[in-house]
Amino acid sequence: MSEDHQELGITESKEHATGDWYAEVVQKAQLADYAPMGGFIVTRPRGYAVWERLREHLDGWFKDTGVQNAYFPLFIPESYLEREKDVVEGFDPEVAWVTHGGYEELEERLAVRPTSESIITPFIARWVRSHRDLPMRVNQWCSVVRWEATETKPFFRTKEFLWQEGHTAHADLAGAMDETMTRLDQYERLYEDVLAMPALKGRKPPHDKFPGAHTTTTIETLMPDGKSVQAATSHYLGTSFAEAFDITYVGEDERDRTAHTTSWGISWRAMGALIMTHSDDQGLVLPPTLAPKQVVVVPIWQEDTKDEVLDYAADLAAELDEAGVRTRLDDRDNRNPGFKYNEWELKGIPLRVEVGPNEVADDELTLVHRPDGEEAVEDRAGLVETVEDHLDTVYAKLYARAEQTLEGEIREADSREEILGTIGQHGGYVKTGWCGDADCEDPIKEAIAAEIVMVPLDRDEEPIHDECAVCGETATETAFWAQTY
Amino acid sequence: MSEDHQELGITESKEHATGDWYAEVVQKAQLADYAPMGGFIVTRPRGYAVWERLREHLDGWFKDTGVQNAYFPLFIPESYLEREKDVVEGFDPEVAWVTHGGYEELEERLAVRPTSESIITPFIARWVRSHRDLPMRVNQWCSVVRWEATETKPFFRTKEFLWQEGHTAHADLAGAMDETMTRLDQYERLYEDVLAMPALKGRKPPHDKFPGAHTTTTIETLMPDGKSVQAATSHYLGTSFAEAFDITYVGEDERDRTAHTTSWGISWRAMGALIMTHSDDQGLVLPPTLAPKQVVVVPIWQEDTKDEVLDYAADLAAELDEAGVRTRLDDRDNRNPGFKYNEWELKGIPLRVEVGPNEVADDELTLVHRPDGEEAVEDRAGLVETVEDHLDTVYAKLYARAEQTLEGEIREADSREEILGTIGQHGGYVKTGWCGDADCEDPIKEAIAAEIVMVPLDRDEEPIHDECAVCGETATETAFWAQTY
Repeated sequence: MSEDHQELGITESKEHATGDWYAEVVQKAQLADYAPMGGFIVTRPRGYAVWERLREHLDGWFKDTGVQNAYFPLFIPESYLEREKDVVEGFDPEVAWVTHGGYEELEERLAVRPTSESIITPFIARWVRSHRDLPMRVNQWCSVVRWEATETKPFFRTKEFLWQEGHTAHADLAGAMDETMTRLDQYERLYEDVLAMPALKGRKPPHDKFPGAHTTTTIETLMPDGKSVQAATSHYLGTSFAEAFDITYVGEDERDRTAHTTSWGISWRAMGALIMTHSDDQGLVLPPTLAPKQVVVVPIWQEDTKDEVLDYAADLAAELDEAGVRTRLDDRDNRNPGFKYNEWELKGIPLRVEVGPNEVADDELTLVHRPDGEEAVEDRAGLVETVEDHLDTVYAKLYARAEQTLEGEIREADSREEILGTIGQHGGYVKTGWCGDADCEDPIKEAIAAEIVMVPLDRDEEPIHDECAVCGETATETAFWAQTY
Repeated sequence: MSEDHQELGITESKEHATGDWYAEVVQKAQLADYAPMGGFIVTRPRGYAVWERLREHLDGWFKDTGVQNAYFPLFIPESYLEREKDVVEGFDPEVAWVTHGGYEELEERLAVRPTSESIITPFIARWVRSHRDLPMRVNQWCSVVRWEATETKPFFRTKEFLWQEGHTAHADLAGAMDETMTRLDQYERLYEDVLAMPALKGRKPPHDKFPGAHTTTTIETLMPDGKSVQAATSHYLGTSFAEAFDITYVGEDERDRTAHTTSWGISWRAMGALIMTHSDDQGLVLPPTLAPKQVVVVPIWQEDTKDEVLDYAADLAAELDEAGVRTRLDDRDNRNPGFKYNEWELKGIPLRVEVGPNEVADDELTLVHRPDGEEAVEDRAGLVETVEDHLDTVYAKLYARAEQTLEGEIREADSREEILGTIGQHGGYVKTGWCGDADCEDPIKEAIAAEIVMVPLDRDEEPIHDECAVCGETATETAFWAQTY
């Protein structure tokens, strides 16, 4: 048993060694393992179940708002990627190339999709003929590959990652911009209502937009080490892709017009941000919305009370299960309660129900919240409602804690030194006036690897200061600075 | 409009040009398009929605019976595939190879997964330690690539295809064999209860097993051109993969033991078989279980009755929708009813509801079954139940028709000449006595490209004839012969 105990415990500290701690939680909570090739991971059932649930939420909202799923080929011919170069510089440095099929060399190299604009857009162009075909919205849940030479960090930095990519075409700017914001709002809702994480919405500064995009909007979330994560993006692409790939349609006035397009995506990085935000030195913490099991029932018995306690526990678990509460009854004979507590704390079950002879005698149950260990004794009567209330409380606690952290981590600065000092000392976000010149980012980037992660969505919003904190020229926007993942 | 009409109509004949007709249905019903690279297709929203629904059914049954989903890397290092060669000859001739990442040549080539035994089994070996970890069941829904040089036939023959692959480890033969049969039964259930297709269950003859498998079980379905499709497979792999990849566990008796493994899969070929079986010269026919829209409501009005008819139709559609019947209201102004009938027949909506002034006056509706055009007039009261009954009837009609076809297409033969003559003339299945020698297949294969597609599941079943129909030696099994896809 001692070997198991060692395996179960988290040995690294979230506060002092965030990166090592994160890697340990991911592995010991059995979310993922490292694959034999650097940059790749195996998503284990406990990890994949979280992704599946996240996908279900978002996919439901997409479908409720006119999105249809489709599936485009894994490979994109090199000539198709080239065509995209009219618009963007391209993904060449990051592409994994298929050069051989069986024993034959291919006539044309095939890119493993790094993103699918260049294969999806030509098909949208083929399918759209009249204004009646618009808006057209397709989405796919798939994996993409980007050959970036970085250290593997499960869900944050991997050469292959799971994501969703939506691609839409609209009759005009207003329709496309509306779409862009609808998806951004759905991503925000995912963070707030499902991942228990407050999120900032904004625009990327012009020099950090998606290549070819007119506007890139972003969801930013703050990690416990004070760095910002780009947690989802939604792009208004203007007519640039439509022009490059010839998406034209016959308008109501019978004239040929060019469509406006959007694309938007979220990857399993959302899972990384989730794990990083809520988990602790005991292991994984998950909100009840996404936890594969929401409740673990642990019976505590002596030999003479075994039957009655086990019956009581099994009955509880069955009632919860029937009501749709995802419940695990841990009635293993060969593990003591302490071991079980540790194991399910490590693996992130949000709520523990303990029942022993006292609970049986008094017709009660003891509930323990995973995030903070808070205990409550409640009546057996009204079980399902009681448990659901406690699950809601656990969710609210997680959200409140993350929100409190975020609120304390948005500061202001009005000089270069103040930006450097504030982020250098505290991490988090610093708001400044900004002139709009990309060059003003350079000295901050060089000194402390911080950058402008976003500006306000509203282009007409007055900057918080009159002058750019870096160069002193007239400020045109408010910039949010942070170090990033 | 004439251009649209041309586009909408199926011009090929199912009976006389099955292949061309199939390709036309797939494209005009907007299920799939051909990708720019030969062998690849784009699965359009109408096609993908069918796949999603099929997946939901099967995935639910898998989860109810202990299967967990996971995700393994898209790429497999060449050395991992090599390791599998202890067991099987390998997929070398069919592998798409990634040789470059960005501008760099890789040190080791990576195979785009042709199937994932060689990457999944080592991880199962790592995760399984004790008998308490068994059975372990993982499944993934993904795409695989096999570089086979064949003409593209959407969903039947494509270099990349969507599928599900399940991989499990068990303590002993009984557990693993049980698993093999559980999955085969679930595939059968999918065909019978969801795809409206009767299916034959059997074993592949020893010379046609999955490489390395102890037993390969199969679902075979008959296509309208008289050929058999291998519609799903479930393999008992014995201990061969467990030995090659070292899946050992500590038994209850504390001794090290070798696990028994299985794998099982179904691909989008199931969709191909579905389309091929039920569709007709008017276009796509789908069972209500899988149809993205189950009912189309078509209002028929003159200028003076427009408002009342449209209101009545919208009200009907809303009531159906609310009850969970997937309903489309086609109230387009710019199309006449005949055009709409043709369009939704082509696109495979199982049930049409027509409402005109007469229906409004009598508080009725006219229902038309897609598969055979049968009409019924029903009361408006009890709408949802009425429609659900008709959808059930449509399902039953599809199943009955396919079953009748199958029943007439299983014949017997007891000589080589009779096999050749019977299959040559009628297609379908021919049952014979068989000695068990693979060589007896050769003359039949050479003459008419038919083979032994299965033998009975029960190894102890008496052969239908005492002698092998080909060589005349003692028969040990009954062989089912057919031409195949």
